[in-house]
Amino acid sequence: MRLPDLLADDKIAIYRKGSLSIFDRRRYPFENEYVVLHSVGEVVSALKCMVTQGGGVLVSGLKGMMLARDEDLDFETASKMLSSARPTNSELKRALENLQRLVSKGIDLESAVEMILSEYRQKYERMGTFGSSLIEDGDGILTTCFPEHSFTISLMKAKEGGKQFSVFVMETRPYLQGAHLTAPMLSEMGFDVKLITDSAQGHYMQEGKISKYMTAADRFLPDGSIINKVGTLSAAISSSYFSIPYYAFSLGISENSEYVMEEGNGEDIKRVGNEKITADHVSALYPLFDRVTSDLITGVITPEGIV
Amino acid sequence: MRLPDLLADDKIAIYRKGSLSIFDRRRYPFENEYVVLHSVGEVVSALKCMVTQGGGVLVSGLKGMMLARDEDLDFETASKMLSSARPTNSELKRALENLQRLVSKGIDLESAVEMILSEYRQKYERMGTFGSSLIEDGDGILTTCFPEHSFTISLMKAKEGGKQFSVFVMETRPYLQGAHLTAPMLSEMGFDVKLITDSAQGHYMQEGKISKYMTAADRFLPDGSIINKVGTLSAAISSSYFSIPYYAFSLGISENSEYVMEEGNGEDIKRVGNEKITADHVSALYPLFDRVTSDLITGVITPEGIV
Repeated sequence: MRLPDLLADDKIAIYRKGSLSIFDRRRYPFENEYVVLHSVGEVVSALKCMVTQGGGVLVSGLKGMMLARDEDLDFETASKMLSSARPTNSELKRALENLQRLVSKGIDLESAVEMILSEYRQKYERMGTFGSSLIEDGDGILTTCFPEHSFTISLMKAKEGGKQFSVFVMETRPYLQGAHLTAPMLSEMGFDVKLITDSAQGHYMQEGKISKYMTAADRFLPDGSIINKVGTLSAAISSSYFSIPYYAFSLGISENSEYVMEEGNGEDIKRVGNEKITADHVSALYPLFDRVTSDLITGVITPEGIV
Repeated sequence: MRLPDLLADDKIAIYRKGSLSIFDRRRYPFENEYVVLHSVGEVVSALKCMVTQGGGVLVSGLKGMMLARDEDLDFETASKMLSSARPTNSELKRALENLQRLVSKGIDLESAVEMILSEYRQKYERMGTFGSSLIEDGDGILTTCFPEHSFTISLMKAKEGGKQFSVFVMETRPYLQGAHLTAPMLSEMGFDVKLITDSAQGHYMQEGKISKYMTAADRFLPDGSIINKVGTLSAAISSSYFSIPYYAFSLGISENSEYVMEEGNGEDIKRVGNEKITADHVSALYPLFDRVTSDLITGVITPEGIV
């Protein structure tokens, strides 16, 4: 099986002298469009507006450094701007530091970016191998948000190994990444997908339809907890209650235990696309992420193995 | 404080010879409109289409019997048609049986309906008194869906008693009754309301912002479990994990333990209003309700007390 376009480095963000085109995940599956950006500042705005996320932020941020060069912005300034666009995504910060190291050794920018991206692809591949080993014939696998490479590769490898399973995808309000990205992508790839509301996870666990819960982890903290898209905690608690194993994919433990809990704009949950869902005078809260404590986690799948 | 229009018997459904107008809760808070119906068959269709729910079904079903009389439909046929419109709502069935008993004693239909509705109002009042006694100063109270009279009266009485608290309302996908009904109504009444996505309940419990969970119960089964809107189970599991008490309001234990788990149309979760949220080829599942087992319930608030 081939990695789908949504996850291919050369499709996520395309650099041409003076411009970076980022695939607009907000419009998938309805439209396949790119946002074309001409400066690091524009890339930062696009990342803040969730044009892409997760591994897409990594690829776009690294390739964004080529724009910095084109506009004669110094490395450090550009790198700080890009890594601050999505403070919870610590991987971009780390990758930009690696990039600086390689470039300062005299490696040209294009090659250095490709070296780093290739390293990530190998890590995803290893995580996919570990992940697929946990999938059993007959499994119902629940996931939240858009768990990208490691999860998708796990499913691909499990399917190639002849295992049959279904995937329950939580829609993931408010941005609906599960409904917009995960469910259509996996469905197009031929997996047996069931889209459910975020509220239905407990029900299908109780009914015995879900036997594993797997998500990405935006951060893996030294105390063993993880930070991921809001809703991960609630489903992890349900998993624990029904004795269903919960595995998170992470590239590795964060060096420090500090984290910024990004608080979104409550107004964002008051509409779905153009559709208003409540009265203007209603006050709303929108936490972007939540923290799953280690007691709720069966294992964290890293490139080095399952912790 | 006065009971809001959404919960007043004389505003929920208005009977005039040959027609029954049911307040269309699907359009609130954006429009205040009634659906005008001229036969029992039309009332059944409206109830199936969720024009109203919960206590609204009870009031509309009882008043629907006046239409049956106008169109010379026999009592038993009409009563069966109405109670089968929403099989999980066992209260309507019970109320229609009571109605038949009163009418067979020679009481005229209008008076009999009013006698039954008045009995319910007294029950709600008692449940509200019990409910308010559980609310403490400083509470953050989470709720799901539209818990109607008993919950609203509990809040009203607690506020009249000088208690200060906030109410976290889960939006309740897919029909968004929390966003459409509960949050706007409580907000208009002057309560401190925070609308959240269904996925954010665990997060605000972990943060210590939620100290009670209270919902209605569509059914209270003899084994001590309750059936309610899908999502109630997941939040009850989170409550139990964080040692937060969970109370459900119920008019009483169902006589039998059988229940029909209504399975909705998966297509219903693939759009929000007119907004498509996923690709057409994606398959989706929509369970209307879930079952909360007794180990997760701190108490069920009935007109006779807290069980």
